Amino acid sequence: MKTTAFLGLGAMGVPMAAALARHAAETGGRVLVWNRHAEKAQAHAAEYGTQAATLEELGQAGLIFTCLPTSADVDEVIGQLETHLKPGTVWVDCTSGHPDAAHSQRARLLERGVRFLDAPVSGGVNGAVAANLTVMLGGPADEVEAVRGELAFAGKIVHVGDTGAGFAVKAVNNALLAVNLWAAGEGLAVLGKGGVDLGAALEVINASSGRSNATENLIPARVLTREFPPTFGLGLLAKDTGIALDVVHAVKGSAPVLAQVDALTRAAAQLIGPDEDHTAMLKLVEQMNAQEIR
Amino acid sequence: MKTTAFLGLGAMGVPMAAALARHAAETGGRVLVWNRHAEKAQAHAAEYGTQAATLEELGQAGLIFTCLPTSADVDEVIGQLETHLKPGTVWVDCTSGHPDAAHSQRARLLERGVRFLDAPVSGGVNGAVAANLTVMLGGPADEVEAVRGELAFAGKIVHVGDTGAGFAVKAVNNALLAVNLWAAGEGLAVLGKGGVDLGAALEVINASSGRSNATENLIPARVLTREFPPTFGLGLLAKDTGIALDVVHAVKGSAPVLAQVDALTRAAAQLIGPDEDHTAMLKLVEQMNAQEIR
Amino acid sequence: MKTTAFLGLGAMGVPMAAALARHAAETGGRVLVWNRHAEKAQAHAAEYGTQAATLEELGQAGLIFTCLPTSADVDEVIGQLETHLKPGTVWVDCTSGHPDAAHSQRARLLERGVRFLDAPVSGGVNGAVAANLTVMLGGPADEVEAVRGELAFAGKIVHVGDTGAGFAVKAVNNALLAVNLWAAGEGLAVLGKGGVDLGAALEVINASSGRSNATENLIPARVLTREFPPTFGLGLLAKDTGIALDVVHAVKGSAPVLAQVDALTRAAAQLIGPDEDHTAMLKLVEQMNAQEIR
Amino acid sequence: MKTTAFLGLGAMGVPMAAALARHAAETGGRVLVWNRHAEKAQAHAAEYGTQAATLEELGQAGLIFTCLPTSADVDEVIGQLETHLKPGTVWVDCTSGHPDAAHSQRARLLERGVRFLDAPVSGGVNGAVAANLTVMLGGPADEVEAVRGELAFAGKIVHVGDTGAGFAVKAVNNALLAVNLWAAGEGLAVLGKGGVDLGAALEVINASSGRSNATENLIPARVLTREFPPTFGLGLLAKDTGIALDVVHAVKGSAPVLAQVDALTRAAAQLIGPDEDHTAMLKLVEQMNAQEIR
Repeated sequence: MKTTAFLGLGAMGVPMAAALARHAAETGGRVLVWNRHAEKAQAHAAEYGTQAATLEELGQAGLIFTCLPTSADVDEVIGQLETHLKPGTVWVDCTSGHPDAAHSQRARLLERGVRFLDAPVSGGVNGAVAANLTVMLGGPADEVEAVRGELAFAGKIVHVGDTGAGFAVKAVNNALLAVNLWAAGEGLAVLGKGGVDLGAALEVINASSGRSNATENLIPARVLTREFPPTFGLGLLAKDTGIALDVVHAVKGSAPVLAQVDALTRAAAQLIGPDEDHTAMLKLVEQMNAQEIR
Repeated sequence: MKTTAFLGLGAMGVPMAAALARHAAETGGRVLVWNRHAEKAQAHAAEYGTQAATLEELGQAGLIFTCLPTSADVDEVIGQLETHLKPGTVWVDCTSGHPDAAHSQRARLLERGVRFLDAPVSGGVNGAVAANLTVMLGGPADEVEAVRGELAFAGKIVHVGDTGAGFAVKAVNNALLAVNLWAAGEGLAVLGKGGVDLGAALEVINASSGRSNATENLIPARVLTREFPPTFGLGLLAKDTGIALDVVHAVKGSAPVLAQVDALTRAAAQLIGPDEDHTAMLKLVEQMNAQEIR
Repeated sequence: MKTTAFLGLGAMGVPMAAALARHAAETGGRVLVWNRHAEKAQAHAAEYGTQAATLEELGQAGLIFTCLPTSADVDEVIGQLETHLKPGTVWVDCTSGHPDAAHSQRARLLERGVRFLDAPVSGGVNGAVAANLTVMLGGPADEVEAVRGELAFAGKIVHVGDTGAGFAVKAVNNALLAVNLWAAGEGLAVLGKGGVDLGAALEVINASSGRSNATENLIPARVLTREFPPTFGLGLLAKDTGIALDVVHAVKGSAPVLAQVDALTRAAAQLIGPDEDHTAMLKLVEQMNAQEIR
Repeated sequence: MKTTAFLGLGAMGVPMAAALARHAAETGGRVLVWNRHAEKAQAHAAEYGTQAATLEELGQAGLIFTCLPTSADVDEVIGQLETHLKPGTVWVDCTSGHPDAAHSQRARLLERGVRFLDAPVSGGVNGAVAANLTVMLGGPADEVEAVRGELAFAGKIVHVGDTGAGFAVKAVNNALLAVNLWAAGEGLAVLGKGGVDLGAALEVINASSGRSNATENLIPARVLTREFPPTFGLGLLAKDTGIALDVVHAVKGSAPVLAQVDALTRAAAQLIGPDEDHTAMLKLVEQMNAQEIR
């Protein structure tokens, strides 16, 4: 019987592990789940037909998924699990991690005969519930192909490059999110201060060349409504823009706009709060302009 | 017989005036056209059933459209036409103009009993040919309503605010275009330098939160192909980011990212050339990183 | 008897007018003073031997100095005084003004036969008290030479260019002040957060290549002490960085760092307060880094 | 007989080792020198009374100085020398290195009983020749005090903090140099484009609040003269601004201006050339503005 493990039952992990469980039910396998807080694993088992497991039991899995806040958390879990791992296992890390960590984690696990792939996802909680996430995979092509069929939570699977490339693309994507969101906030705050109707302005922009996911979706749904629902934290976005900057530095590149927005995102995380929704970074833009975006 | 005039037969103006001519043919009116180079007006008349007119003849129109490179060009045309204008005429300026100019032009024309509306458009040449442009109108609500039915080149008409608001929204839209494009260029240059497949990276980003019109359309069609087709010039984009900054300053606002990208766009116009397509600004990003985006 | 007028008895104007009065006493002239609040003029007269004057009386002066918060204030005073002016008068404006205003003010006054020179000063209140200000003059060379001997408050007089050049240089100087100050604040906040002794760090920097007036004088005296004495307001600095940006735009230049710092200075004026001392802009840097500079 | 070693005979190293040799001559010690290119060591010995030594001989020194381009070079030398080192030796690294490297190098050397201090210097070749360098020391206070008397090339010795703090302060100093220089270049290019006399503008700025080492020394001597003498390379400055950014990230700080200027410095190193003098970064500012600074 094929055994798969899933570690990290956060907002994303719960539906991702559930998708794996549905897939296992169809193919005659089983899914072990683990979480720092054991009761979350038990609740998941009760609701989705997975099995809460100890670290020792997890070592029996031939395929291990992690989906944790940061690469440091993955390092910690690897440390706890290391001695229980069996050769031939594949470790797929869906964390929005750091390319440097991907290299060191892969090297460390290879000493145990375990292969590591970086496989961050996008699509948010809705995408996870619909098993329609986009997965960006970094690692050797043959290893990527070997797991492609196992990513039951994915709607789109893209092999973007070698080890670390998945994390790099994810970090750049999130940095572009930060840039597009912040810049749109600047433009709207200023237009609003000048008396322009912001709903009308967004209608125009979204039919024009300046549109982005930020203007089409995030700002209308989260900012204009003043709801800022906390789905993806500002502190985590700041972590990702920081990783993007590390990617820039690693190739001795020059990215002045990503660099500035990384700094502003960190400032917003500090001034507005790291646990606020990432769209709440526009509250700092509002304070800088003494003008609400509404 | 209702007489409409159209001044400025550039890449956008030609199909816009043609759309007006089709509308006039249906409603029993006529369209006079004028261009700095008279042969363009004659060619338009021959092809689209408009009439090439002198400045004096243009003064007979009850509705005058302008679509010129800059507000300074509109000022010049107003100066030439001024004495021929008749009271009650409406002047609709589709130039990507300056809000300050909108105020002064409106005031100047009101002295002749002529009402001025700022009405920049977006959608590009394709949108103009399909008579599917988005028009963002600035001016008094009743005057905007009065011309709404005459904008035969429009697919969407949005009243965004008082005089100048149309120009302000257009400038902010184009500034967001510049930001989203430049930042995506930074991210892709750096990923490419790190060995990531850029087609794959764009596929992921366009299914994720960092997507924008730049990543979905401009970069795949114009940059990755190395074609940079010259439809909207880099010098004009730099003019527009400059107008956006003036909009920021007019309300004593703070927009560090728009400000930075305005400066970088101007630098690109200087180093790459103002007549290159606006997407060629990424050639400066490429030079800064010694890495082509392909 | 030679009559000189001085309008604007703020922190700078009081000692500047006093220096003119000492000079007049030696050369057999007199100094008329005026202030929006007449009691300030009377107090100045009582203390420094000047004469409080009405707008009508001011018109008798052959040499008029203004030192007001902004060019808009100078416009207003010109409007009030205009009809009282006599041909041949020279108007020397020591305001930190706008180059565009210099051009329009010069043109307006020339219609009355009055010549206008832009002549902003630097050196602060201490420099004014010591009659040791630096004056940067914009205007025709012969007119500049003609007033050189009259600038009794100056320690250094530099003719920097044609009309408006004085204001432009002053704005750029103040923009560099803002850049050097803000950047030093960033560096020190980060070093302090890392446990570095900031007094030692400044001692090193001030013996090294990164030193500036900000690290040598402003930060040790005003920031490390937590005193932030309100001598030059943050709102006025933000006005000046804005003028510098207008100077950049006027020549279609590209200045990404001046642009960024202008935006951050405006943000600081908004978040920290326009009436705080300009060095208090570093309180925003501190908030962005959750780290005091001390 | 006290034996001191000096590794790295570049433009700075040659006079620094010479100063140590003069000190040794007075105190009855000797100085061993080493360079990647052995002939440089022999030449130094012939000229300054030092002794060219093999790596094995260097291990006899109780005090070892390094002054190399980067921390990676120091790592390499440590690797070559490691097995020859004797316990009790003190290693003083005058490289403009990386704080992370200081920690790993100290840990690595402590395993051999060797203590490591980071001790970057400032003052340039002239300061080295005059034995008047500023040394910023990072490490435990007692170890710093123990070497204080040995730094014969120093005019000022400042203990700025624990291990790595010396490198951090040096990186921030050089980042401020880059900021102050670049911003002054922007301001001057724009003023020059507007017809202002730049010598006069600098005279004013250097008597005003915007002055810095860049405006007082570097730009008059190196830029206005169009000499750009290659003393400190642009590529090395870009390395240092990058280290400063790493310092920012290490404390999760926010430094938008340092971040932007790091990116622009890297761009300049790419577009102008890493071996050009660091002041030649203003050639990129000139290209961005189509205006020479002269």
